[in-house]
Amino acid sequence: MKRASVFSPLHVTSRSASFGTRLVDARARGAVVTSRANVRWLSGFTGSNGTLIVGSEIGSPMVLVTDGRYAEQAVRETESARADVVVVARRSQAEVRTAVATHMASMAGPQATWALEADDISLARYEALVAACDSAGVQLSRERVIDAAPLLGDMRRVKSPAEIERITRAARIADDALAEVAPALAAGTTEVQIRDALEAAMRRHGAEDVSFATIVATGDNAALPHHHPTQRRIAAGEAVVVDFGALVEGYHSDMTRTFVVDGPGAGEMLERHAVVRAACEAGVGVVAPGVVASEVDVACRRVLAAAGLEDELTHGVGHGVGLLIHEAPWVNARSNDVLRAGDVVTVEPGAYRVGLGGARVEELLLVTDSGHLVLSNSPKEPTCPPSPRTTSRTE
Amino acid sequence: MKRASVFSPLHVTSRSASFGTRLVDARARGAVVTSRANVRWLSGFTGSNGTLIVGSEIGSPMVLVTDGRYAEQAVRETESARADVVVVARRSQAEVRTAVATHMASMAGPQATWALEADDISLARYEALVAACDSAGVQLSRERVIDAAPLLGDMRRVKSPAEIERITRAARIADDALAEVAPALAAGTTEVQIRDALEAAMRRHGAEDVSFATIVATGDNAALPHHHPTQRRIAAGEAVVVDFGALVEGYHSDMTRTFVVDGPGAGEMLERHAVVRAACEAGVGVVAPGVVASEVDVACRRVLAAAGLEDELTHGVGHGVGLLIHEAPWVNARSNDVLRAGDVVTVEPGAYRVGLGGARVEELLLVTDSGHLVLSNSPKEPTCPPSPRTTSRTE
Repeated sequence: MKRASVFSPLHVTSRSASFGTRLVDARARGAVVTSRANVRWLSGFTGSNGTLIVGSEIGSPMVLVTDGRYAEQAVRETESARADVVVVARRSQAEVRTAVATHMASMAGPQATWALEADDISLARYEALVAACDSAGVQLSRERVIDAAPLLGDMRRVKSPAEIERITRAARIADDALAEVAPALAAGTTEVQIRDALEAAMRRHGAEDVSFATIVATGDNAALPHHHPTQRRIAAGEAVVVDFGALVEGYHSDMTRTFVVDGPGAGEMLERHAVVRAACEAGVGVVAPGVVASEVDVACRRVLAAAGLEDELTHGVGHGVGLLIHEAPWVNARSNDVLRAGDVVTVEPGAYRVGLGGARVEELLLVTDSGHLVLSNSPKEPTCPPSPRTTSRTE
Repeated sequence: MKRASVFSPLHVTSRSASFGTRLVDARARGAVVTSRANVRWLSGFTGSNGTLIVGSEIGSPMVLVTDGRYAEQAVRETESARADVVVVARRSQAEVRTAVATHMASMAGPQATWALEADDISLARYEALVAACDSAGVQLSRERVIDAAPLLGDMRRVKSPAEIERITRAARIADDALAEVAPALAAGTTEVQIRDALEAAMRRHGAEDVSFATIVATGDNAALPHHHPTQRRIAAGEAVVVDFGALVEGYHSDMTRTFVVDGPGAGEMLERHAVVRAACEAGVGVVAPGVVASEVDVACRRVLAAAGLEDELTHGVGHGVGLLIHEAPWVNARSNDVLRAGDVVTVEPGAYRVGLGGARVEELLLVTDSGHLVLSNSPKEPTCPPSPRTTSRTE
């Protein structure tokens, strides 16, 4: 029995069939899928221990191997995917491998080509699987193993309407949480207090979890793009970078805003913020189907360079978002990914100066047939807004 | 500059030296360490992108390769480890690999044996590292690669006093949070509400994060050992399994309690709880240095078997806890790990019946020279205690 959801159902059945077609194109007889995101995307299973065997032949069964902890849950969650659930007696990777190898043997001949997630399976697990296959009569060898990750990453890129619903909801939850917490962004508040307030607000608004470890970086900490919140208190004139998101039925949101607190030094921070915001808007303006992702990076950097801040951007300007917080397509100077309708991507330029501070502005976008739709709706003003209650009264 | 901590400093310097000795014993000239827990344990670096090259020779430098996002943080955090920090220009795995291979070449000859974390490095990353080494003049081949994971896992097992301080604090935070939240464990409360209240309380008490995704499982959900909290409301007569922990400076705690809410059916749940609690206490009673971990499993199962519940325990009864929530030693029927003073382990038998419910009781223990010390101090009574404020007044 699936639990009630306020969203349209996620149709996972057609995914394994589409994947099968891609496997045929890649001349593989099947795939062994091990990463949690891909197992979930193909089968609906959300547990921590699941290996999926997918045959490339139309109508061939998809088999999920898991352990006793997940016996009941696996049957529940994979009902719509019509997967066969195999539960090994004990929570043992050796037993899982034996079951996987047995099902591989039943699906294809001993010399078949198989797809594995080469970026997910560890060297040790790969070698153990080769040994288990050997015992089951499957001669798995490196020359006959292809990488399943690019095939699945490419398929996961284009979001279905049901997936977009969930990501949009996650983005909305983050907007609502920030509107509640923004009035607390004042001198004297600690980074941890802001983090806790944001995360509690997201949960109150229906997030099942946070999307990733919330970043709240104040003062010179704002020069660290991936700073972990501390007990440091905001001081007058400082920038505060807030990078966070919500999780809704496994789907992530991602947004960054930078605020500047009134006081001495605020002027320089406000100038930096204005440049970064303009860079973000320039990048967003380029996002459309058919655009090479590196062009978004170029558009952002052009604005930074005009202000002499290009050297202060030490990371790529974006990434895809879905069941993973970072996934294809990749938005950076070296990316050849061509944007497609259905992609969900971030555009997040920043400028950081060690010892001084930094700014980052990040939007979450859906690529549409005609261009893009911005899913993050929080104001980009650097000044901390008044209480949202007051705002709505004056509207 | 290291940030102030209320705890004794973590001395990481001696760790790379001890690791070097173990590498010499294993006839390896050095190691490439890639997992986040081991990079942190050896160097102090907490970022998400760090590769550590450790030479086995006394006094040989430890090199941390990271990207621009972490340039400042890496220098700060590895100061006490005296690591050389190498920052690659862009956030590119290819550049990281080139830097790693260059430093490997400078530390040992082309035919040297190297230790890698075979359980952490993916097949794709391993093959890319082999290629980068080839370009740098290092002939990395599988026959000359040994697994660093068992060496590091074994070293990480025995906790220093500074590490025990942090784990004890994390366990205490979980106790305090549960004492606050337990009065809410009544008919009508949802699983998500309990999860949110527990997590907020842990943060208020100083947890930097939760130790893992909190489990709150009510009614028939309690039959799922790894259930994810839902909007389901507790009903009269049901069991509620709460499995959670706090994170303090990277160190985890882990504890489970089961409560039974008054009402029809509570009798059967209370009986199951009493058996599981006795099983946990039997397992705890066995924990001492020199004991083979499987004996703890046997002690728990003996109590369950006497009550006819042995088939209802579908998982091992424990695991080590530290920088990872699951680490060595492993406490299950097949474990040959011999407990040592300094190990921190869980003992967590359960009994689950699909469609009905379940119970699990989990303690967190430090193995001491003379036996053990229980770090989790919450009452194991299945009845929801009155408000902690009332309790302390009557003491």
